[in-house]
Amino acid sequence: MSEPKKIVVVGGSAAGPKAAAKARRMDQHAEVTIIQKGPDLSMASCGYPYYVGGFFDNRNQLLSTPTGVVRDPKFFMAAKGIKALTDTEVIAIDREAKTVQCRSMNGGDEQTVAYDTLVLATGATPIMPPVPGTDLEGITTLQSMRDADYLRQIRDDGMIKKAVVVGGGLIGVETCEALELAGIEITVVEMLPQVLMFLDWEMAKLVENHMRAKGAHIVTENPVAAFLGEDGKLKGVKLKNGTELSCDLAVVATGVRPNSKLAADAGLDVGERGGITVNAFLQTSDPAIYAAGDCIEIPNRITGRMVHAPYGDLANLEGRVVGQNVVKGPTTTFPGTFQTGICKVFDYAAGATGLSERNAQAAGFETVSVVTAAPDKPGFMGGKLLVMKMVAEKSSGKLLGFQAVGPGDVSKRVASAAMALQGGLTIADLTVADLPYAPPFSPAIDNFIATAHVLENKMTGRMAGISSREVKAKVDEGEDVFILDTRGPDEYEQMRLGIGEVLIPLGALRNRMDELPEAKEKEIICFCKISLRGYEAASLLRANGYSNVKVMEGGIMAWPFAREK
Amino acid sequence: MSEPKKIVVVGGSAAGPKAAAKARRMDQHAEVTIIQKGPDLSMASCGYPYYVGGFFDNRNQLLSTPTGVVRDPKFFMAAKGIKALTDTEVIAIDREAKTVQCRSMNGGDEQTVAYDTLVLATGATPIMPPVPGTDLEGITTLQSMRDADYLRQIRDDGMIKKAVVVGGGLIGVETCEALELAGIEITVVEMLPQVLMFLDWEMAKLVENHMRAKGAHIVTENPVAAFLGEDGKLKGVKLKNGTELSCDLAVVATGVRPNSKLAADAGLDVGERGGITVNAFLQTSDPAIYAAGDCIEIPNRITGRMVHAPYGDLANLEGRVVGQNVVKGPTTTFPGTFQTGICKVFDYAAGATGLSERNAQAAGFETVSVVTAAPDKPGFMGGKLLVMKMVAEKSSGKLLGFQAVGPGDVSKRVASAAMALQGGLTIADLTVADLPYAPPFSPAIDNFIATAHVLENKMTGRMAGISSREVKAKVDEGEDVFILDTRGPDEYEQMRLGIGEVLIPLGALRNRMDELPEAKEKEIICFCKISLRGYEAASLLRANGYSNVKVMEGGIMAWPFAREK
Repeated sequence: MSEPKKIVVVGGSAAGPKAAAKARRMDQHAEVTIIQKGPDLSMASCGYPYYVGGFFDNRNQLLSTPTGVVRDPKFFMAAKGIKALTDTEVIAIDREAKTVQCRSMNGGDEQTVAYDTLVLATGATPIMPPVPGTDLEGITTLQSMRDADYLRQIRDDGMIKKAVVVGGGLIGVETCEALELAGIEITVVEMLPQVLMFLDWEMAKLVENHMRAKGAHIVTENPVAAFLGEDGKLKGVKLKNGTELSCDLAVVATGVRPNSKLAADAGLDVGERGGITVNAFLQTSDPAIYAAGDCIEIPNRITGRMVHAPYGDLANLEGRVVGQNVVKGPTTTFPGTFQTGICKVFDYAAGATGLSERNAQAAGFETVSVVTAAPDKPGFMGGKLLVMKMVAEKSSGKLLGFQAVGPGDVSKRVASAAMALQGGLTIADLTVADLPYAPPFSPAIDNFIATAHVLENKMTGRMAGISSREVKAKVDEGEDVFILDTRGPDEYEQMRLGIGEVLIPLGALRNRMDELPEAKEKEIICFCKISLRGYEAASLLRANGYSNVKVMEGGIMAWPFAREK
Repeated sequence: MSEPKKIVVVGGSAAGPKAAAKARRMDQHAEVTIIQKGPDLSMASCGYPYYVGGFFDNRNQLLSTPTGVVRDPKFFMAAKGIKALTDTEVIAIDREAKTVQCRSMNGGDEQTVAYDTLVLATGATPIMPPVPGTDLEGITTLQSMRDADYLRQIRDDGMIKKAVVVGGGLIGVETCEALELAGIEITVVEMLPQVLMFLDWEMAKLVENHMRAKGAHIVTENPVAAFLGEDGKLKGVKLKNGTELSCDLAVVATGVRPNSKLAADAGLDVGERGGITVNAFLQTSDPAIYAAGDCIEIPNRITGRMVHAPYGDLANLEGRVVGQNVVKGPTTTFPGTFQTGICKVFDYAAGATGLSERNAQAAGFETVSVVTAAPDKPGFMGGKLLVMKMVAEKSSGKLLGFQAVGPGDVSKRVASAAMALQGGLTIADLTVADLPYAPPFSPAIDNFIATAHVLENKMTGRMAGISSREVKAKVDEGEDVFILDTRGPDEYEQMRLGIGEVLIPLGALRNRMDELPEAKEKEIICFCKISLRGYEAASLLRANGYSNVKVMEGGIMAWPFAREK
């Protein structure tokens, strides 16, 4: 038998252990070693917010197999035949000698480990804002077991009443929920115009509204200017506009930076976004070294441009590809990402896949899009609202992206869209998709398909849509438009926009045409609760000679601004 | 303005109203008429079992818009400008004169209605078994509002204690649940070897086990021979094997037959399955007549063969296509169906899309498939079990079908698979799919992707799978195989198959190789709870020279037979 192959994996969170385990199963004779800087292995780091939020109480569940065995070095050796060195930092790679230099985090002892093939899965590090006071006690991130333990202790102690979450991305929003559930009053501070940048603005605003309804404060377009302290302890956060928010805790979640220094120091190529450069086999510029997970850049599967996509699922999928390639040579490819993401936000979920309209336009696509709103099941089965946005390329009709927010089943629709993107499907394809239907699971025409129907109606000129944001701008600018609410009087009594709309129920419209503007070219904007009746009304008005009739997309349910009632 | 186009739609359930409404929106000047034999319009007929089962109490929710307006002729005229004739049967089509002859169900008055374009959406009729006694009182179907009202009344009265459901298809299984929830002891009688024929046998058996656990009795491979009565009232059901089941109620759900007589009498082509023949534009053999819904045959999108697919979602999608074509001429196509279906079964769901392995093989495909089992979320987020089966074409690696059952989120995975089928994706494509991940929604590697991983492992020879059914057969035939349970002793104490297996936990296996058979060619079958550790063990044994090592797919969680414990 030949000399066993030496496979060394730097990093023990997600991509690293996955690559190691896959390599082991592919080659039971190899020597597989994981070198991990921290004390823990295979942490379910995406689960930290839920531990902090009290969804479960045993921290070891984040570190255990489904049968409750903690994934420590003993487990890795016994169950997988993998040597794991924890609390051990790799400080240098000698590519000539094919060795890595390691240093123990406890004591500083150094050792040299030889490799035939090396895998870098060094992860990413939270970015701290470049402002004064970041070293104050009471400022943390939520990216390690230690962070999770710290915040969970704060929850359990119940002493802290006010906290600021800096950053409204996925982790920021998840942390906001976790701390709110811990009884802490939260302000989320975001420097950009919205939270959750994977959503377009009008979708993100619906999420912000829900967060506010749950008690959180949301500040956008206002970066942190300084952390304020007394005796070394955090006492507040000062924003760029001068506002001071008093608090005893700040969680910084302003993104992460790929840990690529080790690679760069060894002369490996690093990309524009700071991630290690890899080819389609996830091989670095040194063929004996692969990389996977949060430390690399991968292509966006629609634009082809390199992105940094630090998602736990991608890390695992990349690790599996690398595990095959380190054993068989560069044979399996990883095609990149649609940057699919999802996030629980109290009673809502928010998810997206592919390109937002903003990103699609930035990438040079001419887009067409629509926002729709509808319950995710029949009313008699307790359907919950979904607001969705679908973006397509105008020329080809190809799906470019999909977003969904609301209390309804976001996850299923985003998953459907992600598979549709992978298949390169067009909006016309989606109009005749064959999704599983029964009343406990969806409306007869699934929301995802129904959204494609509305977008097709727009693309073929059957419907002229207008976004809530454009309507608001017209109202604010005092434009002379006729706004028609087509719901019933009882619905109007319960809830209404109050933007100067006229109420004529759809069922009465055929007989009340005389209440409409005389000038047939006048702009008329129709809507209802979800703008289905609004669409029917618009069809009717157009057939009656009105030449500038629009439907406000998604109706009241997708209106992100304040309502009169 | 030209003469308004006369569009007549025969049938007012799903496809008919959808076609009429779409046609109306496309042409506000047309005269659109729906002629409906029954009293109701746009019934949410897929919701009947949930009304009977007490999921909601107001029957009108099945007949209403989301805002609570009953979709009666007045509503159709006011809101949609569509004339609806209810309680009116179309008894003949005169294709020369372009008229239909109608007869009132109340009084028998006849009238002639002229059309320019006709749409047939005549639905389907339940098939009654050709046995004695079908006219006894106490025998019903569940396919009309009247049936639903009748069964709901039985629930509310609480007098009937025992019922038989004849047929274990979608409706039969849904009816079983509804009546069990009404406190009635149910026996489901199925003539085929399993319930839910869209599943392969071993998947269907898991559903049957769950139904039994919920108190239902399931009899398979045993058709009804006669309904037994006294004084015209049902008293029991006699099966072919002689068994007599006493009961006061029988619900027959043995499938439906397309209502194509009206079309056939008019000389239109009808297919082998009894459905009206249509082309890709859903146009019948008479270009002025379209058809949609349960009365037609459409192509299976994988095999290209015509099938009868009486699903509510397809009826709506077909109606939308027809609504466009009746206005614009044959321009929009309907590509057919993947026969995607889903069904709630107490705490389980069962769903499938594409071809089962049985159907794929019957269609001439050489298949490769795998069964997997895993929780649908991390344990710390309360993951629930999903058992899945994925079927691919051996030569091309193309996905052919997917099935899922269990308490976990079946619907999302079947939807993902349906979109993957539409995109023509291969198993290799699925291994790098980019689905939405966060712990509240899925494991880091979604179950759908993980199943593709296991199937890829099989296809590339990394894993030799064996089905639970084959293992059971080997055990029953006393074959000399070594069966290895790789779980822990505590797990073994709680639950075990008891088929002669030897327990060696995966973590101890490296040191206990001497307990394995000496003969390296001996067949060894590994498993664990879900056969992940079983797979690791098999990899290890193969590397140690064992040449005939298999993994029992899905492990104990997918074992459909009785367990020792």
